[in-house]
Amino acid sequence: MHARNGSSTPATLRHVLRLSDLEDGAWRRIVESAVLFRRAKRAGKSLNGLASGQVGAGKALGMVFFNPSLRTRTSMERAAQQLGATATTLTPGSGTWDLAWEDGAVMNGTEAEHVRDAIGVLSRYFDALGVRVFASGTDYEQDASDTLIRTVADAATVPVVNLESAWAHPCQAAADAAVLHDRFDGDVAGKKFVLSWTHHPKALPMAVPNSALRMAARCGMDVTIARPDTHALDASVVDTARKTASRNGGEVTQTSNLDAAVDGADVVYAKSWGGPLVYTDPEQEGAARTAATDWRITADRMARTRDGAFMHCLPVRRNVVVDDAVMDGRHALHLDQAEYRLHAQRALLEHVWG
Amino acid sequence: MHARNGSSTPATLRHVLRLSDLEDGAWRRIVESAVLFRRAKRAGKSLNGLASGQVGAGKALGMVFFNPSLRTRTSMERAAQQLGATATTLTPGSGTWDLAWEDGAVMNGTEAEHVRDAIGVLSRYFDALGVRVFASGTDYEQDASDTLIRTVADAATVPVVNLESAWAHPCQAAADAAVLHDRFDGDVAGKKFVLSWTHHPKALPMAVPNSALRMAARCGMDVTIARPDTHALDASVVDTARKTASRNGGEVTQTSNLDAAVDGADVVYAKSWGGPLVYTDPEQEGAARTAATDWRITADRMARTRDGAFMHCLPVRRNVVVDDAVMDGRHALHLDQAEYRLHAQRALLEHVWG
Amino acid sequence: MHARNGSSTPATLRHVLRLSDLEDGAWRRIVESAVLFRRAKRAGKSLNGLASGQVGAGKALGMVFFNPSLRTRTSMERAAQQLGATATTLTPGSGTWDLAWEDGAVMNGTEAEHVRDAIGVLSRYFDALGVRVFASGTDYEQDASDTLIRTVADAATVPVVNLESAWAHPCQAAADAAVLHDRFDGDVAGKKFVLSWTHHPKALPMAVPNSALRMAARCGMDVTIARPDTHALDASVVDTARKTASRNGGEVTQTSNLDAAVDGADVVYAKSWGGPLVYTDPEQEGAARTAATDWRITADRMARTRDGAFMHCLPVRRNVVVDDAVMDGRHALHLDQAEYRLHAQRALLEHVWG
Repeated sequence: MHARNGSSTPATLRHVLRLSDLEDGAWRRIVESAVLFRRAKRAGKSLNGLASGQVGAGKALGMVFFNPSLRTRTSMERAAQQLGATATTLTPGSGTWDLAWEDGAVMNGTEAEHVRDAIGVLSRYFDALGVRVFASGTDYEQDASDTLIRTVADAATVPVVNLESAWAHPCQAAADAAVLHDRFDGDVAGKKFVLSWTHHPKALPMAVPNSALRMAARCGMDVTIARPDTHALDASVVDTARKTASRNGGEVTQTSNLDAAVDGADVVYAKSWGGPLVYTDPEQEGAARTAATDWRITADRMARTRDGAFMHCLPVRRNVVVDDAVMDGRHALHLDQAEYRLHAQRALLEHVWG
Repeated sequence: MHARNGSSTPATLRHVLRLSDLEDGAWRRIVESAVLFRRAKRAGKSLNGLASGQVGAGKALGMVFFNPSLRTRTSMERAAQQLGATATTLTPGSGTWDLAWEDGAVMNGTEAEHVRDAIGVLSRYFDALGVRVFASGTDYEQDASDTLIRTVADAATVPVVNLESAWAHPCQAAADAAVLHDRFDGDVAGKKFVLSWTHHPKALPMAVPNSALRMAARCGMDVTIARPDTHALDASVVDTARKTASRNGGEVTQTSNLDAAVDGADVVYAKSWGGPLVYTDPEQEGAARTAATDWRITADRMARTRDGAFMHCLPVRRNVVVDDAVMDGRHALHLDQAEYRLHAQRALLEHVWG
Repeated sequence: MHARNGSSTPATLRHVLRLSDLEDGAWRRIVESAVLFRRAKRAGKSLNGLASGQVGAGKALGMVFFNPSLRTRTSMERAAQQLGATATTLTPGSGTWDLAWEDGAVMNGTEAEHVRDAIGVLSRYFDALGVRVFASGTDYEQDASDTLIRTVADAATVPVVNLESAWAHPCQAAADAAVLHDRFDGDVAGKKFVLSWTHHPKALPMAVPNSALRMAARCGMDVTIARPDTHALDASVVDTARKTASRNGGEVTQTSNLDAAVDGADVVYAKSWGGPLVYTDPEQEGAARTAATDWRITADRMARTRDGAFMHCLPVRRNVVVDDAVMDGRHALHLDQAEYRLHAQRALLEHVWG
């Protein structure tokens, strides 16, 4: 498809749609660079002065947010700027128009432009595109295949960076991995990582838990997924993570007992998600989620850990997902995770443009 | 009016409100520069390195969009940045307030600020203003006189660039002219240019067809306007174009037979528009438009051309205005038109600031 | 609170939440620098070339607008850019999410993130934050204490600049002071400054009149507050201003006779406000305001002044607050005030980052 209309297609576009798009070497470089950037910043050194310097000079990053963003937009803009590039943020439907997504669509409805054309155009203006497009929440096949972000990548003639799609959030995963490497001084493999589902007023998408799981598996951690039986993660995602963990000396287990799960944990990563039930029986999912108010990260639960760190990707519902006592305690890493978004995405853009 | 409040008025502000604001020399320079920029980019040369260099260094472009934009906003931002300038995008009503337009208005309604004051203020911050303000669609006199963009220009003390007004879209016209010069290697005069009305679910404004017509006439092309009798262009616009074409060795004819029109065409430029009937009898216009579903650019119609190129300014309704087979074929220039927006607007900003 | 989560807190963050956050030396430097910048610009000198140069190089300003803005956003972006910094504008609720403000909030409602976390995150990306958050209009205690902007400053680990809060607008005040120093060539003390309430279709907030009053008092002007008895300013604000004026050789008086007030005035500063009555009896406030259509700045009233200047912070309702004849006359300074926002805020950012 890239070769449409006579535009030349680079042999390989460095799309970053999910974690597996980053080979081991690139992955390690990104995580290590992010830690380096963070430490340089803390030491008061100018990040512009680093050898990686101005790989973005004269370049431009275009970002398309089909869904809201605070952290991702701002950290990505800063990352581009630190590399000497400019960044532009577009929010379709707010100042631009709604897009059609289907191939062969007869566009006599409300959508004024096809995503294929919009992305084709933006590819002519920008040197990379960052795209956020959340899950439908209704079409499991489409969401689990990450159809929309793949449609975007297929229409693009420049690299596409996933800024959270239906099924993956690789930027968050890269930042989280860097936080862990910073926290444990590189000694991450074998540490106990608990990915804990929590209560939440809404049925949330799967991108973050999927990517957190894959990330921890890739780091060779001992991963425990704690969730009610009604809220299991996608079986094939868990299966792949299990194989990845095993290859890296770690493992993945699942439980519906949160208290037992956090015993001796080095990290408790909290995140709510709707799970497959949302697609098949939203009413049952809602009832199960609403009843599960005890799935909350409390100071008591953190006391069962091995001086464990608390992680959350933000935004977080205080005193619903996690108590103030944990968020405001000294083991909470959520602000570091947010800061690491900038450093990791800078490293990721270097990979894309390097 | 410019001299209000003691601010000095430059003797001549280089407003670009319509094609005729660009004299022949400037027009040629803009078109030729755009082609040069495009070819340099394709050859992998840095556009920053061109002699035209950093005419925008230290300067700032302010853009005010009273209507949505994808291409115009991003291409204009990139154009400014390539010249070393910054660009800011404002969308009144979304983060700023609605404006009053009438002289002498008693502002006790919902409008919090007069356009005269808002533009006066922005003139103090920016070195040029880009403004998009679409047709009313109800007041023919106002639209045909381009009253709103003229009000803006009158209030401004820096050059104003029209980013699509009621009656003109000079940025699109400059890009289209450059596309044609690139396509025909400068040999544009005498080529057969068909401006074809198409079916569309909405009655669209006249700015693009008006400017496409003026542009083709200025290039000395043999222009055929194909449209149903219910959807003629404004008579005075056609008349002026006829004189311009004749001065440049071309001509302008009109027909309501699309199949005959495209015979032997070198270019088919598709665009829907509401036409004068929208203002006098919107019901009749709607009925005529709705019935005219056969006014669509198909592969069969393109097969009647002389290996003709397909052009559209975007956004386009696929399989309503034009079939996928044409859009995805090798003679479709719509993405080149979009890319040329950047190059042409860069040249246009050089003209304004040069 | 700053020390949460192990982040180091600078001993003193140079927050600028209200005029009194600027000590006399800083205040003078900002006002004088702004005049210098304006004169350099008028003389056609590049502002980038000034000695103050690139204090923002490599830095980034993040702006959060909980309420709309035209002037403040654009002038602040330009100010940052002139210093070599980048600027990003966020509008919560439009592309980002609504925030919770209360400590200890159980966030099971519509707010997806706590302001404490959002501001904590942004502090990691930016070198200063500009924040606009208007008055509630219903909770007098909260508004008069400027609780919201203080909550923001408390959560921030970088300097916060108030871009208009419930009770203060120091950026406007700095610009206004610079306009006055420019107008009177530094000889501002003792000049007669009339702060005049006006009729308006809405009950407006108090931030601007509060700051205009404090500013004029700090400049040692002879201040007359003209307003209906129903629309007095907050007693403690007036009291503080009276002390400040007296310390600087000026004075503050109040009257409900506008015609008498403007007699011999050097400056008439027009502004509508709702006043304390909005909080206790909005119906009575509305009735009094609606009846007071004669509280309007007319040419006749300006003729009573001593060739007095007219000032307004904009946006202004023409022919409701002030007549066209005054706005378009040669003593109107509103566009200069707007321009001075840029120069004063540039100087203010130099103070914050210097």
